[in-house]
Amino acid sequence: MQLIHHTLSANFIGQEATIGNGDVFYAHAPAHNETLPNEFANVTTEQASLAVARATAAFGPYSSVTPQQRADFLEAIAQEIENLGDALIERAVLESGLPTGRITGERGRTTGQLRLFARLLREGSWVDARINPAPAGVPGPDRQPLPRPDLRRMLVPLGPVVVFGASNFPLAFSVAGGDTASALAAGCPVVCKAHPAHPGTSSLVGSAIIKAAQKTGIPDGVFSLLHADNDVAQGLVADPAIKAVGFTGSRRGGLALLRVAQQRTEPIPVFAEMSAVNPVVILPGAIAGDATTVAAGLAASVTLGVGQFCTNPGLIFLMQSPQTDVFLDTLAEKIRISAPATMLSTGIKRAYQDGIQHIQVMPGIHILAEADADAADNRTEGRPTILTTTAPQFLSNSELSHEIFGPSSLVVICRTEAELADCINSLEGQLTATLYATTHELAQSETNWIALLQEKAGRLLFGGLPTGVEVSEAMMHGGPFPATTDSRSTSVGTGAILRWVRPVSYQSFPDSLLPPALQDANPLGIWRNIDGEMTR
Amino acid sequence: MQLIHHTLSANFIGQEATIGNGDVFYAHAPAHNETLPNEFANVTTEQASLAVARATAAFGPYSSVTPQQRADFLEAIAQEIENLGDALIERAVLESGLPTGRITGERGRTTGQLRLFARLLREGSWVDARINPAPAGVPGPDRQPLPRPDLRRMLVPLGPVVVFGASNFPLAFSVAGGDTASALAAGCPVVCKAHPAHPGTSSLVGSAIIKAAQKTGIPDGVFSLLHADNDVAQGLVADPAIKAVGFTGSRRGGLALLRVAQQRTEPIPVFAEMSAVNPVVILPGAIAGDATTVAAGLAASVTLGVGQFCTNPGLIFLMQSPQTDVFLDTLAEKIRISAPATMLSTGIKRAYQDGIQHIQVMPGIHILAEADADAADNRTEGRPTILTTTAPQFLSNSELSHEIFGPSSLVVICRTEAELADCINSLEGQLTATLYATTHELAQSETNWIALLQEKAGRLLFGGLPTGVEVSEAMMHGGPFPATTDSRSTSVGTGAILRWVRPVSYQSFPDSLLPPALQDANPLGIWRNIDGEMTR
Repeated sequence: MQLIHHTLSANFIGQEATIGNGDVFYAHAPAHNETLPNEFANVTTEQASLAVARATAAFGPYSSVTPQQRADFLEAIAQEIENLGDALIERAVLESGLPTGRITGERGRTTGQLRLFARLLREGSWVDARINPAPAGVPGPDRQPLPRPDLRRMLVPLGPVVVFGASNFPLAFSVAGGDTASALAAGCPVVCKAHPAHPGTSSLVGSAIIKAAQKTGIPDGVFSLLHADNDVAQGLVADPAIKAVGFTGSRRGGLALLRVAQQRTEPIPVFAEMSAVNPVVILPGAIAGDATTVAAGLAASVTLGVGQFCTNPGLIFLMQSPQTDVFLDTLAEKIRISAPATMLSTGIKRAYQDGIQHIQVMPGIHILAEADADAADNRTEGRPTILTTTAPQFLSNSELSHEIFGPSSLVVICRTEAELADCINSLEGQLTATLYATTHELAQSETNWIALLQEKAGRLLFGGLPTGVEVSEAMMHGGPFPATTDSRSTSVGTGAILRWVRPVSYQSFPDSLLPPALQDANPLGIWRNIDGEMTR
Repeated sequence: MQLIHHTLSANFIGQEATIGNGDVFYAHAPAHNETLPNEFANVTTEQASLAVARATAAFGPYSSVTPQQRADFLEAIAQEIENLGDALIERAVLESGLPTGRITGERGRTTGQLRLFARLLREGSWVDARINPAPAGVPGPDRQPLPRPDLRRMLVPLGPVVVFGASNFPLAFSVAGGDTASALAAGCPVVCKAHPAHPGTSSLVGSAIIKAAQKTGIPDGVFSLLHADNDVAQGLVADPAIKAVGFTGSRRGGLALLRVAQQRTEPIPVFAEMSAVNPVVILPGAIAGDATTVAAGLAASVTLGVGQFCTNPGLIFLMQSPQTDVFLDTLAEKIRISAPATMLSTGIKRAYQDGIQHIQVMPGIHILAEADADAADNRTEGRPTILTTTAPQFLSNSELSHEIFGPSSLVVICRTEAELADCINSLEGQLTATLYATTHELAQSETNWIALLQEKAGRLLFGGLPTGVEVSEAMMHGGPFPATTDSRSTSVGTGAILRWVRPVSYQSFPDSLLPPALQDANPLGIWRNIDGEMTR
């Protein structure tokens, strides 16, 4: 029991399970609104620095681990997470208030993600090898004064990185989530800062990673898990040995880390996914035949997971049409019969309720529907709510375009395409933008709606619901600010590995001293660009 | 004559040749140390904003230009630069003090670079298309609750960008240099700020770009060329419509732009290539048979272009060996017989001379050799100089590792491998690191010299000279800070196009509404990643 208790609340400074020397805190169970008994202790700045020092020492050895060994490591992490069995599921449900089915699904997403990166490593072409061989024989006359050198380039890891666990995905965007999986795949040691909303879940997953490292011979220091307060966490970002930062959370939290990073002597990339309202644009043709299916689908997307997905559709732009009332009536009905449900924390519930109350009293804002069951007196349940307004009101009040994290959406009724275009142009950057339209009306319109939406978002949906985020090669989960601080990267899918790498060129190297990915014989059998041609 | 004179000194706000409403200034001819007669006038903040507004308006139209049209545009720029003929060469020689042969070669590099990007566009695979098709038939049981969507991803341009011309490459890193070529290839409108050291050259090249745009039907506003003071230039970086910045120049200049960018609400990438000393590491085996060839090569590299290449080898770490004296004697002899030559400006000459004088009086620093001809009284000539010191002295004085821009190098004699490793570990990030060694001694050494150098640089050379920078697929011209502010990108070679793009995913789109690169039939015939497999 001592061991289990220890694992549940440990920090891991490298492979060493450690009690923090900082403040003691407790986890909270939002569904029961009660504090849980296990004691957690934050690390101090000194302990955090020790984790960074171990990560730094591990970088060289981890860089020389083969891709196959790194793949074994990632697969072992997936296996060890599964080996935690119901204890992990129960703890995550307890700490997050999310239902068992959702957490079980999220575990599958997490292990699937780890195994996807393992496959990417075994396939190997992700290193983007490019080779310009030295020409045999004499150089052409245009190569005065110097002959063309042998030049070979591939991606190499940046160095130790810091990953922050997210509150809304205790597994898939936390300790062994996408940032950790992609960084470890890239060859970067990870110092992970646990989210305080699910510390036990974090320690359990941390223990799984440590076990996997030990079983697959991964150097000590490649992974650390720390419970830490904001000062210590910001100290991690400021540490000169840290070369990149991954974060998913609030706009305030992400910007605070960005500011810390900007005060460093050496600039480093900060990948903070922060805030999005994920606009949905509905042109008349798309609902001319059937407005109810679209409305019911959006109601389900707004309330899915109590509106706590980063791709939750918070703004719906509806072109006025004969179907407007049918659409709104259906949306309203579906919301009324939806049930309030437990949100991730009392703080998040309070912020959600305050956000709705703040908006609903503004001029021109109407409540279209709320869930029939009132959740005002419950400290953690969020009540689904749909508000409406007009385009001119929306355009005159920039607060209406800000995210309210939770199960609500604002429907903006637009009378003209010009109003709709103005609304879209007024938006900040987004993770997703969804367009309901017929190809016929797009061809007729004077506005290029796809181009307009593309400027604002990382993922465009033609119909459908933004709340499902596929983990695959083609996923882009990111977008222009403030959706993320760096629109050039994704936090989901195989592309996430590109966050943590930089290109290096090797000039005139003997074949035997080149990394295998760049050797003449192509021993890894990967796809490579040779003088502009892809070959394997 | 009015027209020619006008072209030589114009700003181009979009395609409109415009006289600046700001301060008047004149170009300087460093070789003759004289001010040239033509009058230039900086733009005001209002005029700069107009250029940004035109770039912003042009972004949509330019995004919908086909890759073939963009390729035509780049090739037309190359042609129009060649059409400028001797007038361009003469002006660039006059303003830079660089010899005609060097400028002619640089023109070839510039046009070659433009044509390389045109080929990249015509081939088309650079957009990194990734496709996860929706599976035919029912989804597998693991795809509850949602079937897998059709998801397709490619790279799209960021938006309007600002490019700063460099002083040391009036053509290849300036108005139509690598940053402009790669940004225009990516689909980003460019607002270019001319370097004041070669304003006439800049206006001439700007006029060539404008002509090429007009001939190939490229929208007005896709390119602007501005003469501007620092305040106006920084205003460009701060403009909310600008989405990225490219810069090559001094550390102070690059960091100033970075700070401006960091004060923006929306963070944007700043690609500033700034400062490098490009260490050369010589292990005994590499010169055991022939120290004179290596020494003579390095002497030539140090003095090439009066030491004004960003890859100039400013630090040589030499392991003490029986060949040390032969190496140093040869190096000294080659430097003594080298000739002082005109530097880019009186300011650069002064900074070079001050830098040498500052260092040479420091404890433990010796002058190994200077060019016999004294250049102290000449206002623009730089005198080649080699200094020596010991590893302990080097390690105790961080100033010795800073760049002195010009034809000098500091040789650091190391008695042990541990001393050498300490010296390398003490370095900041570099564009290049060169290793002279035998494979035998690398295998014998306890230190992984390649790994050690790789942490410090973007390009590793096994022997050879760092001063040649190939323009090709495999070139990485960049590196850890302060070599650049973003080690994940290159400013030379086809990889430079990745500076200016972000991924976008298209989910469940009808084939006809997808960009051609992502359509089922692969009409562009490009390489694409489909469910992890490369296909064409």
